[in-house]
Amino acid sequence: MGNVFGRLLRVATYGESHGVAVGCIVDGLPAGLPVDRDSLQAELDRRRPGQNKLTTQRKEGDVVEILSGVFQGLTTGTPVGLMVRNADQRSGDYSEMERMYRPSHADLAYDMKYGFRDHRGGGRSSARETIGRVAAGALAKSLLERACGTRILAWVERIETVEASIAEPLAVTLEQVEASLVRCPDPGASARMEEAVHRARGDGDSVGGVVRLVVVNPPAGVGEPVFDRVEAELAKAMLSLPATKGFEIGSGFAGSLLRGSVHNDSFQPLPAPHPTGRAGIGMASNASGGVQGGITVGAPLDCRIAFKPTATISSPQNTVDKQGQAAVLAAKGRHDPCVVPRAVPIVEAMAALVLADLFLLHRSRAALFPPPSPESP
Amino acid sequence: MGNVFGRLLRVATYGESHGVAVGCIVDGLPAGLPVDRDSLQAELDRRRPGQNKLTTQRKEGDVVEILSGVFQGLTTGTPVGLMVRNADQRSGDYSEMERMYRPSHADLAYDMKYGFRDHRGGGRSSARETIGRVAAGALAKSLLERACGTRILAWVERIETVEASIAEPLAVTLEQVEASLVRCPDPGASARMEEAVHRARGDGDSVGGVVRLVVVNPPAGVGEPVFDRVEAELAKAMLSLPATKGFEIGSGFAGSLLRGSVHNDSFQPLPAPHPTGRAGIGMASNASGGVQGGITVGAPLDCRIAFKPTATISSPQNTVDKQGQAAVLAAKGRHDPCVVPRAVPIVEAMAALVLADLFLLHRSRAALFPPPSPESP
Amino acid sequence: MGNVFGRLLRVATYGESHGVAVGCIVDGLPAGLPVDRDSLQAELDRRRPGQNKLTTQRKEGDVVEILSGVFQGLTTGTPVGLMVRNADQRSGDYSEMERMYRPSHADLAYDMKYGFRDHRGGGRSSARETIGRVAAGALAKSLLERACGTRILAWVERIETVEASIAEPLAVTLEQVEASLVRCPDPGASARMEEAVHRARGDGDSVGGVVRLVVVNPPAGVGEPVFDRVEAELAKAMLSLPATKGFEIGSGFAGSLLRGSVHNDSFQPLPAPHPTGRAGIGMASNASGGVQGGITVGAPLDCRIAFKPTATISSPQNTVDKQGQAAVLAAKGRHDPCVVPRAVPIVEAMAALVLADLFLLHRSRAALFPPPSPESP
Amino acid sequence: MGNVFGRLLRVATYGESHGVAVGCIVDGLPAGLPVDRDSLQAELDRRRPGQNKLTTQRKEGDVVEILSGVFQGLTTGTPVGLMVRNADQRSGDYSEMERMYRPSHADLAYDMKYGFRDHRGGGRSSARETIGRVAAGALAKSLLERACGTRILAWVERIETVEASIAEPLAVTLEQVEASLVRCPDPGASARMEEAVHRARGDGDSVGGVVRLVVVNPPAGVGEPVFDRVEAELAKAMLSLPATKGFEIGSGFAGSLLRGSVHNDSFQPLPAPHPTGRAGIGMASNASGGVQGGITVGAPLDCRIAFKPTATISSPQNTVDKQGQAAVLAAKGRHDPCVVPRAVPIVEAMAALVLADLFLLHRSRAALFPPPSPESP
Repeated sequence: MGNVFGRLLRVATYGESHGVAVGCIVDGLPAGLPVDRDSLQAELDRRRPGQNKLTTQRKEGDVVEILSGVFQGLTTGTPVGLMVRNADQRSGDYSEMERMYRPSHADLAYDMKYGFRDHRGGGRSSARETIGRVAAGALAKSLLERACGTRILAWVERIETVEASIAEPLAVTLEQVEASLVRCPDPGASARMEEAVHRARGDGDSVGGVVRLVVVNPPAGVGEPVFDRVEAELAKAMLSLPATKGFEIGSGFAGSLLRGSVHNDSFQPLPAPHPTGRAGIGMASNASGGVQGGITVGAPLDCRIAFKPTATISSPQNTVDKQGQAAVLAAKGRHDPCVVPRAVPIVEAMAALVLADLFLLHRSRAALFPPPSPESP
Repeated sequence: MGNVFGRLLRVATYGESHGVAVGCIVDGLPAGLPVDRDSLQAELDRRRPGQNKLTTQRKEGDVVEILSGVFQGLTTGTPVGLMVRNADQRSGDYSEMERMYRPSHADLAYDMKYGFRDHRGGGRSSARETIGRVAAGALAKSLLERACGTRILAWVERIETVEASIAEPLAVTLEQVEASLVRCPDPGASARMEEAVHRARGDGDSVGGVVRLVVVNPPAGVGEPVFDRVEAELAKAMLSLPATKGFEIGSGFAGSLLRGSVHNDSFQPLPAPHPTGRAGIGMASNASGGVQGGITVGAPLDCRIAFKPTATISSPQNTVDKQGQAAVLAAKGRHDPCVVPRAVPIVEAMAALVLADLFLLHRSRAALFPPPSPESP
Repeated sequence: MGNVFGRLLRVATYGESHGVAVGCIVDGLPAGLPVDRDSLQAELDRRRPGQNKLTTQRKEGDVVEILSGVFQGLTTGTPVGLMVRNADQRSGDYSEMERMYRPSHADLAYDMKYGFRDHRGGGRSSARETIGRVAAGALAKSLLERACGTRILAWVERIETVEASIAEPLAVTLEQVEASLVRCPDPGASARMEEAVHRARGDGDSVGGVVRLVVVNPPAGVGEPVFDRVEAELAKAMLSLPATKGFEIGSGFAGSLLRGSVHNDSFQPLPAPHPTGRAGIGMASNASGGVQGGITVGAPLDCRIAFKPTATISSPQNTVDKQGQAAVLAAKGRHDPCVVPRAVPIVEAMAALVLADLFLLHRSRAALFPPPSPESP
Repeated sequence: MGNVFGRLLRVATYGESHGVAVGCIVDGLPAGLPVDRDSLQAELDRRRPGQNKLTTQRKEGDVVEILSGVFQGLTTGTPVGLMVRNADQRSGDYSEMERMYRPSHADLAYDMKYGFRDHRGGGRSSARETIGRVAAGALAKSLLERACGTRILAWVERIETVEASIAEPLAVTLEQVEASLVRCPDPGASARMEEAVHRARGDGDSVGGVVRLVVVNPPAGVGEPVFDRVEAELAKAMLSLPATKGFEIGSGFAGSLLRGSVHNDSFQPLPAPHPTGRAGIGMASNASGGVQGGITVGAPLDCRIAFKPTATISSPQNTVDKQGQAAVLAAKGRHDPCVVPRAVPIVEAMAALVLADLFLLHRSRAALFPPPSPESP
């Protein structure tokens, strides 16, 4: 199990790398949301392999088909079925992975858990499973944008040791991100990141990095303490992505070095740099990352997600085979030396799914009974 | 909502800082698990305020009462109700917090979300809500220890800028941790951490830090990809704790600086330092933090959680009042200058709840149909 | 598990017949809902044993304590903890039930499922577990009444073979119901039902019956096809009550004897006997029981629930003991010869929990995006 | 929402009558379960329209495609995607249903709830949505049969006023059921039922009826009191089917007429007609319908489900149009005059989904800690 995400906006995904198709069902979308197949396809194209010379050479059109739940261009409130057929499969490339366990990959784990596995292309542990996430996330993004004016944007902040320098994170645009092959809006860093990826590929090796996520105009007042806080749900969503090893919100790990007097975000009458959702109140800083007490206050959300280097590399590695005997593996398939740029739209999709779900949860009870006192908002 | 945690082992918690009581219902425990009130109480005592000169001076016995679900010293398979009455409440201390929003605290957020709030002692946003988590977690810990031999241990790795140096994390004992007032098993660092907390208190300020979590002998094969991976569930659990800003597993953010050839954990025939749950197979290293493909492989889990400095400080801070007017607040209540040492048992409790839940999920289907081929485990 | 009910309005209950206490946590209530302890208590008093000469002679004050989630007389949006301590326990009466399985009771089933059981007074299988349901239901009832003007009322329609004749079900009042010891608003039938209960008690036997449930002004448009239809959720809620064997909505089993041309409820411009929630549209009849396509249309909900005769009787019965040997059991404890009258407030409570939950689910997305065409409602 | 069913075995369905496709994702199946496309197809063929002269004349191949989750003929433990493309759509037949509300159908309700609807062929409210249920149910059936030897069988017990007489319900075979066009294993009644259906069709009318469900060898000890009892989950599952109005288990409504001394099922040492799952213990009768205390005891489950007559009929009916004006509707599409025979495989599928889910829930904790005393089972 574990393939259904969300509570009110629920996404179920399916599909293996070399199966017939991958896709999802999105249940719980409000009726009346415009759905444009081209926009959906555009998000999938950002995730698609083979989109440029930096990524895996697998060629997939990744053409999405809308199977249900949309009528006359609008959601009907019934489940939206989305499907992408798998096209270019070279299962033969993976035959040795049937016999050997790739270090730090899911091979051994799946055999332990399920007793056997579909080894072709990594099966369900392949990044192709994220197609369903991106397709569903595109609908959630549209919901949030139309209902709340929310803008969700992610980019690559670091690859290996090359770090971007972004003076005004809130001003970064989708165009700036997409103009870079590695999805880094700092052009100088972008060029050096490309080099780092090429070097790794040339060495039969791989690199990791960090994705930055910024959400401007998030719905305010969402998040459900004590367990289902915004940062908790975002952390789960991000750590559910393949190859992730860490999550930070706001000041993150660095914030734990500071004292409270420095770390605290003073409230101020507006204008203040970070407006809260409460009329007339802003914040002088945003170490909170837009979340206080587990609830969005209207200020931008600001997160970082750490991705490890791709586990599958073409250099020879020591490992064991299925019988537990020592073996040497040099992977033959087509693999990204760096998944971080392609992770960008996936991070955005997961953020959209989390926020849309929490928005609907909050909306179910918001303003149902008027606040008791005049000074309340 | 948001006060129910888990799927098969479900914990519902309730209670405000200055209400009648705090507690929880634990639903889904297997029948026949021995329950010892003294062990439960011992875990609560580790979390309790006023346990030593470093923590808040609030005096609470925090005496737990078992209301149901235990008969002749064993769980019956029915829900276990646990309750702790609130005793020492000085609500008067908090009267100014009714009118003003503490920076970086939940006050403004709760007013935005709910329209008004129980301001006394922070109400539900007080750390007293974690009593229910610790009580439930004690039962989950016992379940895992008895069923799988699992040992869950956390400690303070850093306070402000003072960092512990632990040569062998897997060898740290509960006694070593509890011997330190700040729960740091490195005695030298422990002394310097104490000083850092004292200095912060003297300055009317606060400090944060990092908690390290190690799980030895975790149940193998648990975790439910693609969404409910072990690291995803742990990240959610930890980020659901008050004052947390970050989560790492295994190599974490630092791991994203490495190349795959260095980062990958080679499999080896046993003996190898980190045995996996698959007979005869170990790992040369554990950058994975015990998780591959979202599933435990039997190697120890290794996580870090970042806590920000306590938001409530006694030094004057700029803020706004409920009318949105600029104001200055110097908190009068009794507050920890550093919550990190008391967070240690709470982190352990959340880890236990996550792993016990995933263990039961996995157990529901494990080995139901025999594996198809002789070389499978 | 199985002790948490609902999705947005979640109720977790706990407690055994002879444990320390019974109670519940209600998570997901909107903030600002007035909570009056006396009203809560009044609902519990309707369920309470010993309320009159017809019911079990067990004396319980069943005094409810509000532990959390209410401040200044209003819900705060945080979980509401409710507790009733058990007072009058005569466990000795039940000692023989430790050794023998009562026919058609939960004894054998609990031993099979859990390996052993708290036999005192039936433990968790005692009707005392319904206290938590009634307490939570009282809050849900209040929510629906204030938000939607919904009125939920149940009564006894049949005991053994004595059937009430109610000319206008929609006009029945709570006062009429409560004026009858057996909660039957037909005075003549009520008297004969009393006699039937007395006769059964005199014979050391028990009787069952049918409860009728009517909901006037239900929230319209609620219910979540395809699986979570209103009638599906109501059926589950009712069949989750001890001693229930059947559920009907609208025409029920009798409706399956009719032809479509007779059974269908014609739509009519208003005025019509059964107004739908759509402006200007009513129905000539209500065989639908207020539900079409799994969704409320605004017309009254109309259900029936069948209760079997109480399993525990004082006449001798053939059974087996825990060793599987033939035995004869004549129950000694205090037992209702007929649970149906006391089931009435419990049926109302479950209906309230279902409808409040579905109302919040629907509200989360209702009217978020305007309908596309002018003729839509 | 409302299109995801189950907790450990979760089924998400999608699809409209005249959309591109209908189908489901089945998440949570154990790995290693053999999956045979032909068996899946055979179950769908039992549900398929146009299978004989009695049902709607719509011609659909209803060919199922397995998209994922099966490798080398076995489930892999990852989600199984199943899809059936819609083929024969004559949307023109339904154009008048765009303007008018069919009495007792979902048309008005969907417009109220969602603001507009896909009117073509009833959209999501069409019985075509049950294809996903039957496909998923076929997998659940196979799981139960292989793991527990469970046999699930349903048949038509009544159509309109024609009732079957079945002397030995536990001896009925699938072959006997399928030998009848109306799926009634009493040949005489079957012939009269056929006539009743023909008569109704000839009159432009429709008829309803009752389906009987018997489960032999159900897994024992499953069901999760207090809310998620077996009968509660079955009741929900059955009332989630289109056109259902009632549910009974065991003695049902008739049982409420009896006294406890008659109704109770005496336990007996084996041999006894209804063996329980506890070694050596049987029951003299089965008014319980196989469930005691909300838990299966091993005796056969025995349920009845009431179906109303089909709402869509070709005779003229009074109704209103979308503007709320009085109108007359005589439906033109192809409609079953009686859905009851085709409901049989759907009832079986829902029973299988409920029991497989509860079986896995129970298995997650069963026998984890040994029972404390020697006399326990």
